[in-house]
Amino acid sequence: MAGDIDYLEPQGMAAPGGHYSHAVRAGAFVFLYPDNCRSPPMVRGLLTRTFRPRCVRHWPISRRRLEAANSAVDKLIHVRVYVTDINDWPVFDKLYSEWIGAVRPARAVVPVPTLHYGFRVEIEAVAGVVQ
Amino acid sequence: MAGDIDYLEPQGMAAPGGHYSHAVRAGAFVFLYPDNCRSPPMVRGLLTRTFRPRCVRHWPISRRRLEAANSAVDKLIHVRVYVTDINDWPVFDKLYSEWIGAVRPARAVVPVPTLHYGFRVEIEAVAGVVQ
Amino acid sequence: MAGDIDYLEPQGMAAPGGHYSHAVRAGAFVFLYPDNCRSPPMVRGLLTRTFRPRCVRHWPISRRRLEAANSAVDKLIHVRVYVTDINDWPVFDKLYSEWIGAVRPARAVVPVPTLHYGFRVEIEAVAGVVQ
Repeated sequence: MAGDIDYLEPQGMAAPGGHYSHAVRAGAFVFLYPDNCRSPPMVRGLLTRTFRPRCVRHWPISRRRLEAANSAVDKLIHVRVYVTDINDWPVFDKLYSEWIGAVRPARAVVPVPTLHYGFRVEIEAVAGVVQ
Repeated sequence: MAGDIDYLEPQGMAAPGGHYSHAVRAGAFVFLYPDNCRSPPMVRGLLTRTFRPRCVRHWPISRRRLEAANSAVDKLIHVRVYVTDINDWPVFDKLYSEWIGAVRPARAVVPVPTLHYGFRVEIEAVAGVVQ
Repeated sequence: MAGDIDYLEPQGMAAPGGHYSHAVRAGAFVFLYPDNCRSPPMVRGLLTRTFRPRCVRHWPISRRRLEAANSAVDKLIHVRVYVTDINDWPVFDKLYSEWIGAVRPARAVVPVPTLHYGFRVEIEAVAGVVQ
């Protein structure tokens, strides 16, 4: 490994709700995972009733999470998006593009039958470390 | 990062149908994602009615995509295969082995309730860069 | 690539049940995937009827798999857990924490409608190479 593995607990984030780290740095990569709904969501657009309000409210927090992990939005390499309704794809794509701006990570949208806590969208990501 | 992050738009591919890149190079890795059905599928065996015809027709395109991203089939590290019917596993495995040849990337087959545009199979991949 | 891509077939493991490798090393990373149920499960807690007995029985095998791939449990970077019933989350999290100990890789829990061979849990992982 070009550098060790660091299990990160970014400052200002609530403790993980299970046995995991909010982010892990391995070499020049950072692996970022959604935490549970009791703590500020990272790169997660989630909603229970209406899609837009929850996305708009929660996505900006992910910038802070990325920065706390020594990364940044423009270092995102790929994102994997879990959706409970593939019909949310167009509105998700629009909100996502507004949030992320000019950066275009590779992206997979994966339909799932349900998500924890009734979320409708979860996003996990791999990003590069800011040099 | 051993090298920057490059958001790739391989020549000869249709523009992405959403806010994403067809492929992203990060250091010595390339992250490859299925694009939508309006553009030539990459490493994606997809079908609407019959499994075999669509797999056979579309998979060879992925070689071109890999090469356009400065990678190759024999540089594939792992693939993640989303299937809407786990009973497709045996025929998928057979078609996949015919397509990929002697190379044996790590592989996860993930059942999903549905896929965008009615696809029955989607494949995402991480590959190495050709030196 | 800092080092070549190695398609690993760790000693003492049954041959893969499909066209894939048990583990692939790429640079300083190892990509580990569940094999099928005819061979010893790797990092896979699987069960057909009762959750706990199968998890307890199978997870220790993954240590051997990791070591055979020149990695180790404390080199795990992230795991992706597929579950057929999100209500298994609390018991899974407890068993997982007992198994993995102090290490806290990033982790995504992904609900799926079903898994091959009637499994209720599958785990795939990315780990670092032991130097």
